[in-house]
Amino acid sequence: MRKFIYVYCIVFHLLLFTQVGLAHKKSIKERKPCKRIVLYLHDTMFNGTNGFNATSATVANGTKLGNFKFGLLAVFDDPMTTDNHLLSPPVARAQGFYFYDMKTTYNSWFGYSLIFNSTKYKGTINIMGADMMDEKTRDLSVVGGTEDFFMTRGIVTFRTDIFQGFDYFRVQMDIKLYECY
Amino acid sequence: MRKFIYVYCIVFHLLLFTQVGLAHKKSIKERKPCKRIVLYLHDTMFNGTNGFNATSATVANGTKLGNFKFGLLAVFDDPMTTDNHLLSPPVARAQGFYFYDMKTTYNSWFGYSLIFNSTKYKGTINIMGADMMDEKTRDLSVVGGTEDFFMTRGIVTFRTDIFQGFDYFRVQMDIKLYECY
Amino acid sequence: MRKFIYVYCIVFHLLLFTQVGLAHKKSIKERKPCKRIVLYLHDTMFNGTNGFNATSATVANGTKLGNFKFGLLAVFDDPMTTDNHLLSPPVARAQGFYFYDMKTTYNSWFGYSLIFNSTKYKGTINIMGADMMDEKTRDLSVVGGTEDFFMTRGIVTFRTDIFQGFDYFRVQMDIKLYECY
Repeated sequence: MRKFIYVYCIVFHLLLFTQVGLAHKKSIKERKPCKRIVLYLHDTMFNGTNGFNATSATVANGTKLGNFKFGLLAVFDDPMTTDNHLLSPPVARAQGFYFYDMKTTYNSWFGYSLIFNSTKYKGTINIMGADMMDEKTRDLSVVGGTEDFFMTRGIVTFRTDIFQGFDYFRVQMDIKLYECY
Repeated sequence: MRKFIYVYCIVFHLLLFTQVGLAHKKSIKERKPCKRIVLYLHDTMFNGTNGFNATSATVANGTKLGNFKFGLLAVFDDPMTTDNHLLSPPVARAQGFYFYDMKTTYNSWFGYSLIFNSTKYKGTINIMGADMMDEKTRDLSVVGGTEDFFMTRGIVTFRTDIFQGFDYFRVQMDIKLYECY
Repeated sequence: MRKFIYVYCIVFHLLLFTQVGLAHKKSIKERKPCKRIVLYLHDTMFNGTNGFNATSATVANGTKLGNFKFGLLAVFDDPMTTDNHLLSPPVARAQGFYFYDMKTTYNSWFGYSLIFNSTKYKGTINIMGADMMDEKTRDLSVVGGTEDFFMTRGIVTFRTDIFQGFDYFRVQMDIKLYECY
């Protein structure tokens, strides 16, 4: 009996420290995301005549500070697809805004929500951060979520897939959630 | 004595697993909020002549993309009351911005702070997310807070109480905080 | 032997409750930040002719609601320095937007990213919240971060260092991170 208690204690303590360790969330960097979704955003800018296809519009024009449309503010309601084809069935919408904010190169800043309403996922993921467009990849913050993504947090990695002037751009968004409930 | 140790162990372990379980925050969905505040936001749009009453103003007009003011950007400093009467004493201010972002219906996106400065609460709650106005209820994210709401996170559920064109609207905001410190 | 078990149990339980207590994050307010960085933001507004020095530009003008530029929206890419000299070498950039949002005094709201790219730090810190400029200090929320600031959360305390009309202002930002990974 005493032997059993000893063995039980050892196993129990090992389990315990593992659990408390996880609760401390110290090693989250090395941990895998609890959920990962890779999607493509398609942004088709409104030019005054393409209202049927356009999903984004300029709300305030760029200023004369530099030659890279500093201050141009766009609002969008863009489709998100699982591959890089514009006409693939959207699995989510991205609704929000971005603006350009550098005078020496194109660089932008995003605040937006991913809105899922499919059989697979329902709910929203809220994202904000800097999009340093010259970098091959750049990370923004997932700052919250609702329903299937209740209270989530994480990182979205942007990779520009194509940038056709201001008519159309496509960005791969690699959504890695590290807090899931 | 041995009996006592057994009983103690069982009780202790039960307590322990409960606690470690809570620390893991797996069941947060079923948990009650640690704090809940229900308030009404009153947004009175500036029309050029109602400066005394207005608490919100259009900063950029809607674009010609669709017929639902796509891109219209408003900045607001709206009173928050505990009931749905515009003239009730405000218990907080809501300061921030919203814009319309769909071409097929009215739909908006909010970024704002609730600012409390009363005997009951001092501090701010920071909120962002999509406001899908056609839904009966929709959830935005509480992404942070200060002072009495230090580091808080949670969900705000919007319910439209009244929408009088662009002159006045009132939204019930059901603020549920799941992380309190 | 039995004595040893008793002593062990007591020590173990004390350790345990401490740890579970920390995991519960109840006492975070009294805890010191896991990282603290104090920087100065320098905002030089574009006036049409100072393109070389300007780091900020008005994207939408203030409205006629009140006399405090209600609704004025600015986009910025401001240098951050460790002391209050504009010409000190920047250790980070602050990229984002602010707008004025009160009709009875100057008051603003910020959404921005701090971008570090030095030997000391790489990565971004994402911040949003109300800047009640009349208060001596005011707190905004750190809602996320990337790379060296992976998933961080915390508080940024603003202190106005100087406010020269709309040409130039300098704010001390005391960044206190309470969640580090």
